[in-house]
Amino acid sequence: MRFRGLMMGRVLVGIDLGGTNVRIGIITPTGRILKKEEYALDPSQGGLKIVEELVSNLKNILRKRIGRSNQLLGIGIGIAGAIDMKRGRMVLSPNIPGLNGFGIREFIKKRISSPLAIENDANAFALGEGWVGAAKGSNDYCGITLGTGVGGGIVINGEILHGSRGMASEVGHMVIDPEGPLCGCGGKGCLEVYASATGIRRMALEAIEKGEGGEILKRAGGKVEEVTSEKVFEAARSGDKAAQKIFNEMGRFLGLGLVNVIHLFDPEKIVIGGKASRAWDFFIKATLGVVMERAIEGSREKVTIVRAKCGDDAGILGAAYVSLKSLGH
Amino acid sequence: MRFRGLMMGRVLVGIDLGGTNVRIGIITPTGRILKKEEYALDPSQGGLKIVEELVSNLKNILRKRIGRSNQLLGIGIGIAGAIDMKRGRMVLSPNIPGLNGFGIREFIKKRISSPLAIENDANAFALGEGWVGAAKGSNDYCGITLGTGVGGGIVINGEILHGSRGMASEVGHMVIDPEGPLCGCGGKGCLEVYASATGIRRMALEAIEKGEGGEILKRAGGKVEEVTSEKVFEAARSGDKAAQKIFNEMGRFLGLGLVNVIHLFDPEKIVIGGKASRAWDFFIKATLGVVMERAIEGSREKVTIVRAKCGDDAGILGAAYVSLKSLGH
Repeated sequence: MRFRGLMMGRVLVGIDLGGTNVRIGIITPTGRILKKEEYALDPSQGGLKIVEELVSNLKNILRKRIGRSNQLLGIGIGIAGAIDMKRGRMVLSPNIPGLNGFGIREFIKKRISSPLAIENDANAFALGEGWVGAAKGSNDYCGITLGTGVGGGIVINGEILHGSRGMASEVGHMVIDPEGPLCGCGGKGCLEVYASATGIRRMALEAIEKGEGGEILKRAGGKVEEVTSEKVFEAARSGDKAAQKIFNEMGRFLGLGLVNVIHLFDPEKIVIGGKASRAWDFFIKATLGVVMERAIEGSREKVTIVRAKCGDDAGILGAAYVSLKSLGH
Repeated sequence: MRFRGLMMGRVLVGIDLGGTNVRIGIITPTGRILKKEEYALDPSQGGLKIVEELVSNLKNILRKRIGRSNQLLGIGIGIAGAIDMKRGRMVLSPNIPGLNGFGIREFIKKRISSPLAIENDANAFALGEGWVGAAKGSNDYCGITLGTGVGGGIVINGEILHGSRGMASEVGHMVIDPEGPLCGCGGKGCLEVYASATGIRRMALEAIEKGEGGEILKRAGGKVEEVTSEKVFEAARSGDKAAQKIFNEMGRFLGLGLVNVIHLFDPEKIVIGGKASRAWDFFIKATLGVVMERAIEGSREKVTIVRAKCGDDAGILGAAYVSLKSLGH
């Protein structure tokens, strides 16, 4: 009976609605992932189509995976952009333009009978890491994702920082060098132009232009357009100095960003994840060096800078956690 | 009777324990200042002497100004540096080195029978402006003081941000230009080296060295060591282009700092005060220009950037407010 009781437990659904794929997890209230599914998303579709597809997939999963054997407590969705938290509406949806202005919560709630919570994807990452990952047990920490862009989620006294309009913790658009390279946001020298996959690619192309990126170019089959942060990582692992120099630069600029985060938030911990963090060993030394050199005494020795633990699951975990929290747990 | 009732009201004492002078105010629970006193402080004295002097002055004021005609609700102290909020102990006291490590709350509480609250001075500034000043009615705002250094106080959902060790909102030590001038903190290119009285003086000395600061030097009686931010302000007001250029530069760098603050906190409002903000008309245009150019769409149009209203009283008001809040009001 005990075994059966466990099987028939209460579960949460965590959704990571990314720019090119959607991950859905069935997760226990203690943060254990029972099932995961994933499907590709075409971000150029209209918002209605995207959300209809999500609802249809979600209904399938709920029927197949939950059915009568589990009790669904709630659903959480993590999504890039600024969210009007009161209305559950996307204010700004950079990765899926079709969702700009879309009232996603109401749309889904009309079709699926379950409590529904929405959160920014970087916030979901931070909350996932805080729930069962590298920031577990901490009430004051920052999560930073180094992906295509740089995202941030900041937890203060156990609560995520949303700001007055849901646009806080845009860590990726801190100005690091006022005269630095152009950023997608229209600014110059934002953290994102250095410490993201896009930034690594940019630095690699610059190195190639200067005649220093031979090994990187070789790994991209000699085609500049095939240079990716992944190729730079491969080159660095093979011992290529130019690629290692790029990660060193990335680490240095990331360190400057962390100095600002430390000075403004005084966190116990900073958790760094995202696909570009796979090159950890090639950039973290430079990052920690800058922090020790530049952050204020009393903070720099005490803050812990660690690698994320939940990998690609942080998003679904965080989304499930948001759902759990919204139920008052 | 009503008149007498008002006169015999309950009052708070707010103390602004600065690096060179101490201001003490008797303040109503609605934020009206009834009395103010001020005395000079020698910051090179030992901590014991400084706090004994404070206690002695405080006792005098309480006897003279409060006596039997008012009921003292509580005392609040604003002081520069990092404070261990739980123990009421100075962790770091940059302006009054003698107070480093001093358990100021316990010392005073043993000598004066009253509830006592301590808060960082920039936080007190922000809370004072939020209570009865330029941020009244706002729950999410940042207060920035441009003084000898640059201080910050950040209010999130109506609560001041302390961080995990009471060292948050060090706005003045955000890195604005990684290769900028040396800062007192040991870093380079911190906001403080541009947007403080010290920064203005530095830029003036550079202008003089380049042969551009003739009018500024004249106003300092031809003596480089007498150049102050105040002299630069005078020169700017008289129409001196070199002085105006300095404030324009200051404003531009301040704008870069505000962009970071906006991206990280998404405040409704930013309130700027401190003695160097007196040159408002000479720097604010450049500041707002940078914010409109660099801050993310959706935030930049909505954040209000305003001048502080409480002048030199923000510190005592905020200290009194902290005391009021600590009583559960």
